[in-house]
Amino acid sequence: MLAEIITIGDELLIGQVIDTNSAWMAEQLNRIGIKVHQITSISDNQDHILRTLHEASGRARLILITGGLGPTKDDITKQTLCKYFETSLIFSEEAYKNVGKLFSARGVAVTEINRLQAMVPANCKVIPNSNGTAPCMWFEKEGVVYVSMPGVPFEMKGIMEEEIIPRLLGSQEKVIIHRTILTEGAGESFLATLIEPWEDSLPPFIKLAYLPQPGMVRLRLTAYGTDRDALQLAVNKAEKELHTYAGKYIFGFDDDTMESLVGRLLREKGKTLSTAESCTGGNIAQLITSIAGSSDYFKGSIVAYSNEIKENFLDVPHQILVDCGAVSEQTVLAMAGGIKQRFGTDYAIAVSGIAGPGGGTAEKPVGTTWIAIATPAGTIARKFLLGDHRGRNIRKASVAALNMLRRNLMEEI
Amino acid sequence: MLAEIITIGDELLIGQVIDTNSAWMAEQLNRIGIKVHQITSISDNQDHILRTLHEASGRARLILITGGLGPTKDDITKQTLCKYFETSLIFSEEAYKNVGKLFSARGVAVTEINRLQAMVPANCKVIPNSNGTAPCMWFEKEGVVYVSMPGVPFEMKGIMEEEIIPRLLGSQEKVIIHRTILTEGAGESFLATLIEPWEDSLPPFIKLAYLPQPGMVRLRLTAYGTDRDALQLAVNKAEKELHTYAGKYIFGFDDDTMESLVGRLLREKGKTLSTAESCTGGNIAQLITSIAGSSDYFKGSIVAYSNEIKENFLDVPHQILVDCGAVSEQTVLAMAGGIKQRFGTDYAIAVSGIAGPGGGTAEKPVGTTWIAIATPAGTIARKFLLGDHRGRNIRKASVAALNMLRRNLMEEI
Repeated sequence: MLAEIITIGDELLIGQVIDTNSAWMAEQLNRIGIKVHQITSISDNQDHILRTLHEASGRARLILITGGLGPTKDDITKQTLCKYFETSLIFSEEAYKNVGKLFSARGVAVTEINRLQAMVPANCKVIPNSNGTAPCMWFEKEGVVYVSMPGVPFEMKGIMEEEIIPRLLGSQEKVIIHRTILTEGAGESFLATLIEPWEDSLPPFIKLAYLPQPGMVRLRLTAYGTDRDALQLAVNKAEKELHTYAGKYIFGFDDDTMESLVGRLLREKGKTLSTAESCTGGNIAQLITSIAGSSDYFKGSIVAYSNEIKENFLDVPHQILVDCGAVSEQTVLAMAGGIKQRFGTDYAIAVSGIAGPGGGTAEKPVGTTWIAIATPAGTIARKFLLGDHRGRNIRKASVAALNMLRRNLMEEI
Repeated sequence: MLAEIITIGDELLIGQVIDTNSAWMAEQLNRIGIKVHQITSISDNQDHILRTLHEASGRARLILITGGLGPTKDDITKQTLCKYFETSLIFSEEAYKNVGKLFSARGVAVTEINRLQAMVPANCKVIPNSNGTAPCMWFEKEGVVYVSMPGVPFEMKGIMEEEIIPRLLGSQEKVIIHRTILTEGAGESFLATLIEPWEDSLPPFIKLAYLPQPGMVRLRLTAYGTDRDALQLAVNKAEKELHTYAGKYIFGFDDDTMESLVGRLLREKGKTLSTAESCTGGNIAQLITSIAGSSDYFKGSIVAYSNEIKENFLDVPHQILVDCGAVSEQTVLAMAGGIKQRFGTDYAIAVSGIAGPGGGTAEKPVGTTWIAIATPAGTIARKFLLGDHRGRNIRKASVAALNMLRRNLMEEI
């Protein structure tokens, strides 16, 4: 089954809001074998919505629509759906009960505007929305299913998981299998040359895509067919063969991240970690603790955003800060040793750098970053020359630091 | 001038990558008065790309294309552009020089595959890409401009800022002005009822949209016309009038965030801040330090992910942890006092909660979060009942904590 996604909202077209809904919905649909053919973002304009619905209905049998359904006046989606399905709005007792239930749980009174939310096109089926007041509407017309959902990601996700995916399941014939292989240490073009013979040997129903990201290149295999077992076997075989060409660069699979891999290794070894962060400002700790259960191996962090904190709480000698500066090999080595000692952990990460845009000098330009890893066997440090974008420098330094620790835990260095 | 954005890549349609390029490009175009009419994401498929280009050219005079331009084999965009513009690929000395320059700066050898990157459609103008090897191509056909850029955000942004925006400037007639007003403390439907008379009084060329986010509702005014000064005056007037209806809920404008507002207030007052974080795991420190220059007022943080760290480094009495638990009013009050005292700051934030998915009890379910603010005048704490999604709980707790401090700095409590 082919699907299309239509996201409605002026905020998408002026760039105020990034459309994260489409990627999430596409992933859910793919998992149950429904392929997304096109994603279209359009404004809150009746003619534009009507034309886009019409065009999409010629290409797909499932059309998911998000946005344009709120308690407020920027909502024209329902009127447009009425026009498209040649019907009019009626009051839905079911939708109104849902509003009442949600508001009483929050201890808030229902306003007249919420009553308007319970008005829905007469020929739709109202689908429960357990996280919000806007109703979800399911239409069928000439063999095409249309589902209109609110654009608030949290509400849309609840509706998709609880109601839409279960309804779509069971009628699928086509199967899609994805496998993503994460590599680090080789650039995209170097890797492409290296694995060219392997790529040429892939069967026609397996597609390869390169997805570069800061610090890594992800290779995605997509197999498309009807026999799940046969596809899975072919993908497993291709993955195994890839190892003979590029095994040394492979570090993870699918949804793996540096922080999840580091967490897994620490858990397996029964070891603990702490971090001492200057330029990354807590971002490494935040990545590590984004993983559920990380308190089993992560004890904590000191974000030392001033020299005084580095001296008094990480035991960096005053003279090192004076002689070598806060961004230096000596400082990060002392920071890593200091936090490991103080927090009593087996491993520690320390980072100090110039994230920018200010603070650079001729000798130490913006992007200069020192990273140290303290281990039971000793402490190592490495210098990185990142770029001149603050946010990107923070992200790159965080990934590089986690990768240094990961390599160490893998006993690769 | 109307524009459309086409983003190409299977990774977008299977949900592996979120299309952040479109929002960024749309924002840049809006700033120079170019309105984006539609954003379309499609797969790496020649027929689909050709049809989408054809359709877009009937609606817009500027078409920005990203994706499908890498050193590797998943690249079919250039061949498709040749077909669309009825031409063939030729070798571009200019594009090849750019590849050589970039690689020598990185100390990497040019591979045969990079030579292929210098092949471009004969009738395009090659636009420099200072951040990558894929060429940017500018085409003109029947009054429509087409710009094809690589999909790597960093490369696309460099090209847009350095080359495309300057070329598009100067020929604009239409003007778009946006003003976003940030509110907190009132739900969307309550706010809508409150400001309805104001909304009804808006002139027809000013549009209002509601953009709810965790912890806040953003109201966006968009004015569209030809006279910039007249539009600006009308928007200023509307904003001023909004204050009489909802002034007490307004806390910021446009790109303001809780962290930028807190930073501005601390800077103005010449005061310093530290944080003690448990469940937020460094996310508050990371938000604060995402602001350039934050080292002027932020001294650092202790992420205390274990009770032992709370006791030994934040001076939370052992008995409090035993009697009240780590997620309690007494614990966050002690944490806030401890970090303020130890780091010698004027203000401090402390957070302890159950982010989930594990760790909840009947008495303290997942989402239970205590936040404390230490100020020169004393320490206050407040309990929040957030949801059951780990990532969302961390974000909500971070915004709530920054907002508590912001209110305090504004002397509203």
